[in-house]
Amino acid sequence: MSTAISPLAPTDVPDMPEIAGVRLATAAAGIRYKGRTDVLLALLDAGTTVAGVFTRSRCPSAPVEWCRARLKDAHSSRAGLALVVNSGNANAFTGKTGRQAAKLTADITAKAAGCKASDIYLASTGVIGEPLDATKFNGVLETLVSNAAPHRWMDAAHAIMTTDTFPKVATASVKLGKTAVTINGIAKGAGMIAPDMATMLSFVFTDAPITATALQSLLKSGVEDTFNAVTIDSDTSTSDTLLAFATGAAGARGAPKISRASDPRLKAFVKAFRGVLADLAEQVARDGEGARKLVEVIVEGATSKASARKIAKSIANSPLVKTAIAGEDANWGRVVMAVGKAGEPADRDKLSIYFNGIRVAKSGARDPSYDEAEVSKAMKNDRIQIKTTLGLGKGRDRVLTCDLTKEYVAINGDYRS
Amino acid sequence: MSTAISPLAPTDVPDMPEIAGVRLATAAAGIRYKGRTDVLLALLDAGTTVAGVFTRSRCPSAPVEWCRARLKDAHSSRAGLALVVNSGNANAFTGKTGRQAAKLTADITAKAAGCKASDIYLASTGVIGEPLDATKFNGVLETLVSNAAPHRWMDAAHAIMTTDTFPKVATASVKLGKTAVTINGIAKGAGMIAPDMATMLSFVFTDAPITATALQSLLKSGVEDTFNAVTIDSDTSTSDTLLAFATGAAGARGAPKISRASDPRLKAFVKAFRGVLADLAEQVARDGEGARKLVEVIVEGATSKASARKIAKSIANSPLVKTAIAGEDANWGRVVMAVGKAGEPADRDKLSIYFNGIRVAKSGARDPSYDEAEVSKAMKNDRIQIKTTLGLGKGRDRVLTCDLTKEYVAINGDYRS
Repeated sequence: MSTAISPLAPTDVPDMPEIAGVRLATAAAGIRYKGRTDVLLALLDAGTTVAGVFTRSRCPSAPVEWCRARLKDAHSSRAGLALVVNSGNANAFTGKTGRQAAKLTADITAKAAGCKASDIYLASTGVIGEPLDATKFNGVLETLVSNAAPHRWMDAAHAIMTTDTFPKVATASVKLGKTAVTINGIAKGAGMIAPDMATMLSFVFTDAPITATALQSLLKSGVEDTFNAVTIDSDTSTSDTLLAFATGAAGARGAPKISRASDPRLKAFVKAFRGVLADLAEQVARDGEGARKLVEVIVEGATSKASARKIAKSIANSPLVKTAIAGEDANWGRVVMAVGKAGEPADRDKLSIYFNGIRVAKSGARDPSYDEAEVSKAMKNDRIQIKTTLGLGKGRDRVLTCDLTKEYVAINGDYRS
Repeated sequence: MSTAISPLAPTDVPDMPEIAGVRLATAAAGIRYKGRTDVLLALLDAGTTVAGVFTRSRCPSAPVEWCRARLKDAHSSRAGLALVVNSGNANAFTGKTGRQAAKLTADITAKAAGCKASDIYLASTGVIGEPLDATKFNGVLETLVSNAAPHRWMDAAHAIMTTDTFPKVATASVKLGKTAVTINGIAKGAGMIAPDMATMLSFVFTDAPITATALQSLLKSGVEDTFNAVTIDSDTSTSDTLLAFATGAAGARGAPKISRASDPRLKAFVKAFRGVLADLAEQVARDGEGARKLVEVIVEGATSKASARKIAKSIANSPLVKTAIAGEDANWGRVVMAVGKAGEPADRDKLSIYFNGIRVAKSGARDPSYDEAEVSKAMKNDRIQIKTTLGLGKGRDRVLTCDLTKEYVAINGDYRS
């Protein structure tokens, strides 16, 4: 397991403000790790609405199934809600005992928090296939409930880490009507992806009064160009979970109640909300296992945005492109290969490729005017932009990834055993 | 560039018999490498038929486009055919100059061999995006024509290597009617895939008298479970080329002329032909860049063979599965992840997973009876079989790959610069 902090870690960590209606606590329940916290409790006041998006895996974890069932019959609870997240064990591919562990965790939490089990949301991250011993939460949850406090955001971001090398937080403040509302988010990554101890989890909280339906719509559209546009290694987790909670507490300070995502009063909020998701998603890419360079893949001139996305993902997931970036090699031939294998409309003789703004290929051949020394220097940067223009239409998209280093192989080859 | 021979190289290299109607020669034309051969000429007697399958890349190389055009108006030539293969430069993404280089190579060869440019087949492998200086073939081809001889099979396999660590040859002898016919094949790999100096090329030759149409049909069906079932790193080359040549010389010894692939007299030949393709394809997997383990992925119980193929490819292309194999870790949780992300029908609670015959997971959870020590020992083997049974239907498929090692990253990160 890598312990050195990623060289791409943000240097500027924001002060996380409190959000009315949200209280947090963390503890060391000894799920797997020693000497660190591994369980997070978030208590949400009565009236809080919830939305969620989850992995598209056909083999999702027990907590993902649990949350989907809760959202299906979602209602705003009179007694409040709770979110429990543990790291160290994903409770995935654990069969019947996995469902029982999820139920037991919810029961223990409901009892401690004084609400119903159906008001509890769960997420787990860590090893796949090992039974989760939920009895370890006995007693721990009672303590967490009594310790919960509005300021523990950094503690919360720490408790959900697995192979992450830094905690991921983001915040924004924005006007809703004439009232300032706050959006806080935390995430864990190390992949969007599923190394067996790293799954993508993220939780976003706001005091804005937004109905569950509107919040779900916001979340679904917000994720498309943020979390869904990040890839570390193309491996989709069984546990990917992004939950959003809106306590509505800002309503008491005059914020209007929003029931439609298309409400014009929500415009600034939508932008800020997406900004928080984008910030967290970029931090996930910056903490990709073994990452030494953040890679932004831009595809322009495709026949559609969907086509541009497929080509951008093909480039971003190509082991040969990613190892070339690790080797600081502006290997545009591999970018051509990745464009070609995507199966989307592309005309070789119209392609141009740029690395950090320097055009290295145009009209289907090497750009005769490009300066190898200039490009080599640019490739030493720790942020690399690969832009491909197809010259076919107006489709554009952007995907974030990182390079593929020997460290990635070491982390994932030496890991479980 | 790796120079040590892959530990997975076959220990048994066959003696390659001559094939009537095929003569071979190699030379060092100085395309890119120093001190080694980099051009192969195969001369094929009048009456030879040709078939070919190529990369599905939307950005194919100039030689791929050249061969496709030749096959489109294929006819059996009265003056014979020639195949010219060079290593060191793929003549891919070279624009108009690439097409000119292909044409010039064909013209030089046609003049030297006394046939038409439209009777010349071309393949190139090596760096993408660098202009190929075909004038280097001037003079060289004349010498090759005069040196061509029926026995130079190992020389031929050597001349087409790039990052390959061993030459790849296979042979079979089989009865067609009452006459013995021979099938010889050579290949280069290091990927099925496109590191910028490794593309998959393979050439198969036989003296059996088979029409072009029947040969094309044979080749198309033969490739499905052989070359198309191999993946090193999911990166499809711009230059993948597999050509088959049938000289028909065995006709003079009494072999029946075959004009339909479904001809019952062809049954043993079809089996032997596929055997040669399968042998070469496995050698490609054994020489995957940085490979230390050959990995056979078997999926059973899928809803169809096509579904089994998609799931097998998802497992075989997963960086996390491949790094786990490199780390000798029977990490079945990552196999579950790869099944889940394939998007094909799968029921988590019906899955079973085996490593080298040892069941480690069943019915959606860890197999309680599996012995970690026994599995750990099995994982030290240099051939690893991952079998997944889905329990849904009768669809079965098999894909070959190799592990993902630090050496792969080193080869591809340090390569071009």
